[in-house]
Amino acid sequence: MEFFKYYNPTRIIFGKNTISEIGEYIKEYGYNKVLILYGGGSIFSNGVYSEVSKSLQLNDIISVEFGGVQPNPTLDHARAAIRIIKDNNIQAILAVGGGSVIDEAKSIAAGCYVDDVWNIFEKTESVKKALPLFTVLTLSATGTEMNSFAVLSNTEQKKKWAFGSPFSYPLVSIIDPQVQMTLPWRQTVNGGVDALSHIMELYFAGDSAEATLSINEALMRTVIKSVDELQKDPNDYDSRANLAWSASLALSGLTAVGMNGGEWSVHRIEHSISAYYPNVAHAEGLAVIFPAWMKYVNKQNSERFERWAKNVFGVDSINEGIDALINTFKRWGAPTSLADLNVPSEMIEQIAQNSMLLGIVGNKHKIDLDASRSILNLAL
Amino acid sequence: MEFFKYYNPTRIIFGKNTISEIGEYIKEYGYNKVLILYGGGSIFSNGVYSEVSKSLQLNDIISVEFGGVQPNPTLDHARAAIRIIKDNNIQAILAVGGGSVIDEAKSIAAGCYVDDVWNIFEKTESVKKALPLFTVLTLSATGTEMNSFAVLSNTEQKKKWAFGSPFSYPLVSIIDPQVQMTLPWRQTVNGGVDALSHIMELYFAGDSAEATLSINEALMRTVIKSVDELQKDPNDYDSRANLAWSASLALSGLTAVGMNGGEWSVHRIEHSISAYYPNVAHAEGLAVIFPAWMKYVNKQNSERFERWAKNVFGVDSINEGIDALINTFKRWGAPTSLADLNVPSEMIEQIAQNSMLLGIVGNKHKIDLDASRSILNLAL
Repeated sequence: MEFFKYYNPTRIIFGKNTISEIGEYIKEYGYNKVLILYGGGSIFSNGVYSEVSKSLQLNDIISVEFGGVQPNPTLDHARAAIRIIKDNNIQAILAVGGGSVIDEAKSIAAGCYVDDVWNIFEKTESVKKALPLFTVLTLSATGTEMNSFAVLSNTEQKKKWAFGSPFSYPLVSIIDPQVQMTLPWRQTVNGGVDALSHIMELYFAGDSAEATLSINEALMRTVIKSVDELQKDPNDYDSRANLAWSASLALSGLTAVGMNGGEWSVHRIEHSISAYYPNVAHAEGLAVIFPAWMKYVNKQNSERFERWAKNVFGVDSINEGIDALINTFKRWGAPTSLADLNVPSEMIEQIAQNSMLLGIVGNKHKIDLDASRSILNLAL
Repeated sequence: MEFFKYYNPTRIIFGKNTISEIGEYIKEYGYNKVLILYGGGSIFSNGVYSEVSKSLQLNDIISVEFGGVQPNPTLDHARAAIRIIKDNNIQAILAVGGGSVIDEAKSIAAGCYVDDVWNIFEKTESVKKALPLFTVLTLSATGTEMNSFAVLSNTEQKKKWAFGSPFSYPLVSIIDPQVQMTLPWRQTVNGGVDALSHIMELYFAGDSAEATLSINEALMRTVIKSVDELQKDPNDYDSRANLAWSASLALSGLTAVGMNGGEWSVHRIEHSISAYYPNVAHAEGLAVIFPAWMKYVNKQNSERFERWAKNVFGVDSINEGIDALINTFKRWGAPTSLADLNVPSEMIEQIAQNSMLLGIVGNKHKIDLDASRSILNLAL
């Protein structure tokens, strides 16, 4: 078991009717002027905006609102938010939405203290400070509400890249699983696939950290079980709650202990797909690429893949495990091939090249240009 | 799944040769005068003291030393430490040792800001501030290195009581599993029993939090597997590391999510045993009382007990599960009866009475005086 540091100071407030507490938490930290960042406006139809707004008023917190965050949040939009913050002497950011909104909020929070926010992603400037960040989560998927990572897309340069910093943990994240009951089924599935993918990226890179391996198996089973239950009854509160909490834990640091930093090849290839196809949801790309990656690499790490097949799906061989994963995705209605995403074979070369912009990726399983190409072909 | 708040800001530095970093962390927070609190002096023979001392010197940190913390830390000793801190303008506490040392350090840290430290335990004064606390853990067992709880014994009044406060999380805890390789076997076992007991106190009180239930089963299996491996080879680093990390997580808040605060009846009864028998190690009392408590309460919660028997021990009935737990303790050489602890049946009445000083205990399984008596009788 390798050396590790574990640190996650985010306060999680989890449960029914917790959104109305957000104002109190912001006030507790002494802030009275925030930027409310949100996405497409579903927060207006599902009542979340009204709850947040009331809570801020009750606690004498002034807010400036900025909507329009895209499903793949963009550099241009983040830059615009930074200008608003500087022009209005905003003290803190309140992100209300799913992973995209919170990710862009983290970019903005750190971007307020550098020359240009994209420099953080290019690693030409480092994060030494960030605006305080509060979040109200409306879609459990990426785990960003409980970690220090963010992804942003530079659409002009076709780069969808990530950063992380110890200054980027949300101070407080409120998770009310009730507000997720009205989500379209596709988004529930995407949340499950995303959470599962985070755990798997870590799990297959891990060594002898038995505690983490078995925790990760427990979480993978819980995600699958919860989504299955929600397919029967989208209003099953306990399954919503278990899926939400598993998704938060999935990338909270807990699942990474002793996992050597993870593989992340599937994420890299997926990011290259959505760099060219911004309408492909992150999780849809992951559902397509993960089984293909498994087919490509499993022989290098057969003991771990056998354990995974057995402890997550209760089957005896690696191939049965991969089939069980594909069948799970199919059962949920997730795409499982590039064809399902309308990505033609002619695009493979460009996507594979794009996935190598940051160099070879992977840990136990190094993925170079050839390998990326092969995985994409296996995903056809 | 019930409402919950999750918050654990302690920074964990875990791995080989990490103790020499302690001075840098204390310096990072800007402190240069600490009280080093320790116990019986094993830190002098295992090299830990010398590592700590060197690291403090290298980082220009002045220290005042105060040893002699007892296995069941006492109020008198904590009061003496508070006087030393006040007389010497100490800025922070560095606890070097096992759970007892860290627990007393938490009591001292909070006790510096109230009229008398025991008032915190009697709940007549509340904790609003505490000295910053750093820890170097030398024995993984209680999980105190990663939580906000502490236990202290008022020997005069025969009260072994607990408190917890959001100001009582250690800032940084260093865990080097290597230093635990030289522990006497009995202490390794006690660590395993203690960690297992924490998880079980929570697990049996939980409702529908599938994520936590399955994480807790994963951790119970990991603790048992790790101690079994260490019985074969005390120098097996990976098993030391997995046991250490599982013990930290066992009472970190993670295992408590959705568990309704836990049962804690076994802890309460055990505390009453060690109030009369200070030489009985906490974990030894737990190993004796837990199976007796299970025998007494399992019929009220048979579904959970069956799940536990199946998922932790792979057996099909509750009775087989309880037998498997007893056999695990016996295999490790832990006591499994009051007779093993040299506690005679004549003491049951006094211990049972003592266990009710704070009122009825338990959650799904309320334990009153009669029940406490019955459990103690089942433990004979």
